[in-house]
Amino acid sequence: MNVSVLGCGRWGSFLAWYTNRVGHDVMLWGRPGSKNLESLRLERKNEYLELPETIKFTDSLEEAVESAEIIIISISAQQLRSFLQTVSALPHIDEKIFLLCMKGLEAGTGKRLTQVFKEEMGAGCHVGVWLGPGHVQDFRKGIPNCMVIGSDEIEVTKKTVEAFNSELIRFYYGQDLIGNEIGAATKNVMGIAAGMLDGAGYSSLKGALMARGTRELSRIIRAMGGNDLTIYGLSHLGDYEATLFSPHSNNRRFGEDYVKGIPFTKLAEGVATIEALHHLSEVYDVELPICSALYAILFEHKETSKVLVDLFLRPVKFEF
Amino acid sequence: MNVSVLGCGRWGSFLAWYTNRVGHDVMLWGRPGSKNLESLRLERKNEYLELPETIKFTDSLEEAVESAEIIIISISAQQLRSFLQTVSALPHIDEKIFLLCMKGLEAGTGKRLTQVFKEEMGAGCHVGVWLGPGHVQDFRKGIPNCMVIGSDEIEVTKKTVEAFNSELIRFYYGQDLIGNEIGAATKNVMGIAAGMLDGAGYSSLKGALMARGTRELSRIIRAMGGNDLTIYGLSHLGDYEATLFSPHSNNRRFGEDYVKGIPFTKLAEGVATIEALHHLSEVYDVELPICSALYAILFEHKETSKVLVDLFLRPVKFEF
Repeated sequence: MNVSVLGCGRWGSFLAWYTNRVGHDVMLWGRPGSKNLESLRLERKNEYLELPETIKFTDSLEEAVESAEIIIISISAQQLRSFLQTVSALPHIDEKIFLLCMKGLEAGTGKRLTQVFKEEMGAGCHVGVWLGPGHVQDFRKGIPNCMVIGSDEIEVTKKTVEAFNSELIRFYYGQDLIGNEIGAATKNVMGIAAGMLDGAGYSSLKGALMARGTRELSRIIRAMGGNDLTIYGLSHLGDYEATLFSPHSNNRRFGEDYVKGIPFTKLAEGVATIEALHHLSEVYDVELPICSALYAILFEHKETSKVLVDLFLRPVKFEF
Repeated sequence: MNVSVLGCGRWGSFLAWYTNRVGHDVMLWGRPGSKNLESLRLERKNEYLELPETIKFTDSLEEAVESAEIIIISISAQQLRSFLQTVSALPHIDEKIFLLCMKGLEAGTGKRLTQVFKEEMGAGCHVGVWLGPGHVQDFRKGIPNCMVIGSDEIEVTKKTVEAFNSELIRFYYGQDLIGNEIGAATKNVMGIAAGMLDGAGYSSLKGALMARGTRELSRIIRAMGGNDLTIYGLSHLGDYEATLFSPHSNNRRFGEDYVKGIPFTKLAEGVATIEALHHLSEVYDVELPICSALYAILFEHKETSKVLVDLFLRPVKFEF
């Protein structure tokens, strides 16, 4: 099958490597002038992977979209809307399947990425999400993992799982698009919280963070119409190993550096998600104590250690 | 209030230190001839803690039980039944509150520890459980955590939470004794599984282990009459940081050493729990794939790596 991957960062180039490995004809797209694309073209490798000769490169969005049956998008979540405004002008887009391999919510609106997709591409365009745990470094070594693909259209889920399932990635059918999108986006928020606990010397509170964080997120998902068990699946809890406990996690690292006063050059994706969640908390009238604490720290500049300790020592008697 | 702690291992001596710290008159009991007791009497400290002069020591079970209003038990789970056979012969035991601070299920019968308690002590005796995450090393440094106390009698829960709640340990009321006991016991099983993944070089599968392990345990708890959300609370998921991700966890270490072929002198508590779970799985007719895999490895000597990989790559399409 012809597959195009839009976005040639670490994850995008992995997706090209993986989909090629499972037998597809793959084209990897980067923006004109993209340094990643330039360097991949020259060397056929980046810090993590070598890409085989059979993967084509292009900086023509039209070529990438036109030639593929399944189009995987892996760019920064906050850039999705403007990016799709360009994609939506291309021909035949309603004959394709788009898979969003990215985690986030739109800051300001709190919208899920498939909502942004439908608004920009039209309700008739087919879209799914590909989410869950996995490190590029491990996959390259042949260490398998489980991930999830979901869509509002079961045919999209079935077709893409069939196309991409392998001994290296075992895919599950996502049963709750709302829960999986919120779960995937908010694992970055929990990653920031975990990093703050690490930075403040409270790593042992990460257990309580997991138990209480999943509870509050479960409540917002239910309020939005999703299933309150989804947060405990691969897209969220299943990604905690890679996010809350990995020194490599950008979001965890961001939280740790923030607490330690180490300057950061780039905001972690979870920061925009905290803003989006803060908005959703008000819209759906659901209390999100951990999210509110992070909002108070990052957007209202409250003292981190005090907010974190207050959060875990607040007088609540029942867990559920 | 007069509080006695029965058992002077690492956790028992911590419980004496903690309950003394929050203002109670504490007596710490160890078996006659116990090396831990002897050394605490001589030095008033162990590897982890110093115990203040106000804590009394005794090797008389009668004195420890007779003098206290709340009696905390912290011994090895598999020894509970025979231990209680001695305690049950003492006078006035139905006027006391017993709190079990231990995690396990009875091997062979699969019984919860409060079931074992009621069978040996009589249905009229008051019992609760004190469970959840926390490292002695952290508490000593003043790093707080959240734990859970539960009982079939809400008055027992209220009284003990009121007695022991502090800025250092924030207690929640346990709402599901079955779920909390199964959850606390089985976190050791997940710890062994996590250690096996670590030892086999598959640490990144710990995310999938968390998502899928909690699901199967949730099913057995529901079958037993508990609440299927309890597994995601402090007593199980809340203890993952200390169990699945800590180099200090005995159960995780046992699993890692097992895979690496490093000889072990002592079985981890989770091993007996795997046997108990295997029994419960048959009695309640609930499939427990991760538990069965561990049973096959440890009790039927199947090849670890193959069982683990098969487990995560087995063809299941839906997560829930």
